[in-house]
Amino acid sequence: MNMQSRPNLKAAQDAYPTRVPGQERLSDRKDPVLWSDWSVDAPISKAEADFYAENGYLIRRDLFSPDELRMLTETADALRNGGTDFPDEDVIREPDSDAVRTVFRLDRHSRAFRRLACDSRLAGVAEFLLGDQVYLHQSRLNYKPGFAGKEFYWHSDFETWHAEDGMPRMRAVSASVLLTPNGPHNGPLLLVPGSQNLFISCVGETPEANHETSLKQQKVGVPQPETIARLADRAGIASAEGGTGTVIFFECNTLHGSNGNITPDPRANAFFVYNAMSNAVGTPFAAPAPRPAFLANREQPKAIKPVSGPLTA
Amino acid sequence: MNMQSRPNLKAAQDAYPTRVPGQERLSDRKDPVLWSDWSVDAPISKAEADFYAENGYLIRRDLFSPDELRMLTETADALRNGGTDFPDEDVIREPDSDAVRTVFRLDRHSRAFRRLACDSRLAGVAEFLLGDQVYLHQSRLNYKPGFAGKEFYWHSDFETWHAEDGMPRMRAVSASVLLTPNGPHNGPLLLVPGSQNLFISCVGETPEANHETSLKQQKVGVPQPETIARLADRAGIASAEGGTGTVIFFECNTLHGSNGNITPDPRANAFFVYNAMSNAVGTPFAAPAPRPAFLANREQPKAIKPVSGPLTA
Repeated sequence: MNMQSRPNLKAAQDAYPTRVPGQERLSDRKDPVLWSDWSVDAPISKAEADFYAENGYLIRRDLFSPDELRMLTETADALRNGGTDFPDEDVIREPDSDAVRTVFRLDRHSRAFRRLACDSRLAGVAEFLLGDQVYLHQSRLNYKPGFAGKEFYWHSDFETWHAEDGMPRMRAVSASVLLTPNGPHNGPLLLVPGSQNLFISCVGETPEANHETSLKQQKVGVPQPETIARLADRAGIASAEGGTGTVIFFECNTLHGSNGNITPDPRANAFFVYNAMSNAVGTPFAAPAPRPAFLANREQPKAIKPVSGPLTA
Repeated sequence: MNMQSRPNLKAAQDAYPTRVPGQERLSDRKDPVLWSDWSVDAPISKAEADFYAENGYLIRRDLFSPDELRMLTETADALRNGGTDFPDEDVIREPDSDAVRTVFRLDRHSRAFRRLACDSRLAGVAEFLLGDQVYLHQSRLNYKPGFAGKEFYWHSDFETWHAEDGMPRMRAVSASVLLTPNGPHNGPLLLVPGSQNLFISCVGETPEANHETSLKQQKVGVPQPETIARLADRAGIASAEGGTGTVIFFECNTLHGSNGNITPDPRANAFFVYNAMSNAVGTPFAAPAPRPAFLANREQPKAIKPVSGPLTA
């Protein structure tokens, strides 16, 4: 059934079949995690590169000045409260309230965040991790209110991007820039270290317009609990905590999720997905139609030219 | 309207009016937190007594031997999986699944847990904290499965026990005995230190048979978010984490709640509410009828005689 969306594609051409009938299957990753050899010219240390290759994520702290952080959080607040300025499809609200949860196409709605996306501290590191020039596959501002923040269940982003956006290979990385302090109890990003090395072919067919519900609660493309437990047994669960300005890079296939948040402390972050120029999206591998542009950039990719120097509004 | 349930009660006799119309009101606690003067004969240290008086909770570790812990966890597993042996009303299941969440009247369903409830490490400490002989107001086994454990929102137990069970004063304490390790990410008990010193008169009337839904999600008797934020601002939020066998004592009016749990690690605990013999429950202060016996012991209270020595099955 999945083949309907790619009538001329031989199974052999799909390195990562998913949304399959029958049983969930695990297969080895067919791509490097770290696509560059480390050298003294790399934008991260040898230890950081090794950590990323082994664990599928990397936390970097103290990259931004107090002035830069103030500018970013003020810009984020203005965007969150000025929702009428951008198209409806670019805003997602909490399931049980009107609170804004996500603003998509952040790089279009804000000059400051577009500049951040191109900053060498993000895009330069992404280029190194992916061993290629990069472009933005998706960008968004996430806001998880206090008291009412909902959980997000374990998933691999790549599974969705491959199935529904047509991303061919595992050559993308997300960068999450924390815009509030994120402690253990206000819904930090939880990751399963090492999970980037296995591809989980998930069971089930993609419904039409799946993204309309999957952004609030993902039901298809979700691994079995036993699989998550088995992977988490090996290396535990990592919690990506830190102060405002902390940047979490995580590989596109690393399993992640987050608990809800009953504490008064909201969580906000700016989220950028960098894809390798050589890995541009095509026809979805397992969905009737591609997701809309606010979720997956389908224009002719434009390589980011990383910019150095202080951020300004 | 609340007065209907206590037609002869003058407002002045209700030290803690709640489920009121109009606006939430905060008032000072009218009872001691710690009801005994500390002496060298006390079952806890001076520092522990001071901590409890100031923060409204106390965490005690390493009280049980490995043999005792093995016996308790095996007994808990058997109870959880042998649900057909006790009445339906004594079992609560997860909102979204059939997984057992709570077994009530634990002291009736298990000789081992009845013995635990009477152990001097629990009942002896409760006597000291309450400055009186004690009896069991409620006992239960809580089980929060991995992957699907739901959050429980902030509340004061006393608010419910006063409104719906007719507990006159703040002279009760809960003891939670952890039966699984409880880390930051599998839904540990979160507490607001110092909140025991304020009574929050909650807005709204108690619906009939409120307990039928409130055990899964409490809607009445819940403080306003701004109030929780204000109290949490003063002393932060404490997370009661620890290994199997850790005992958390928390005062009946201390605000607490817990996040959900998407991790594979379940959470289980045995939970005993000790009430002072002098504080036995009467007519509910703000509910049409008392809650059923599995939630609030309404029999002639029998004082526990604390037992020393090792636990046996």
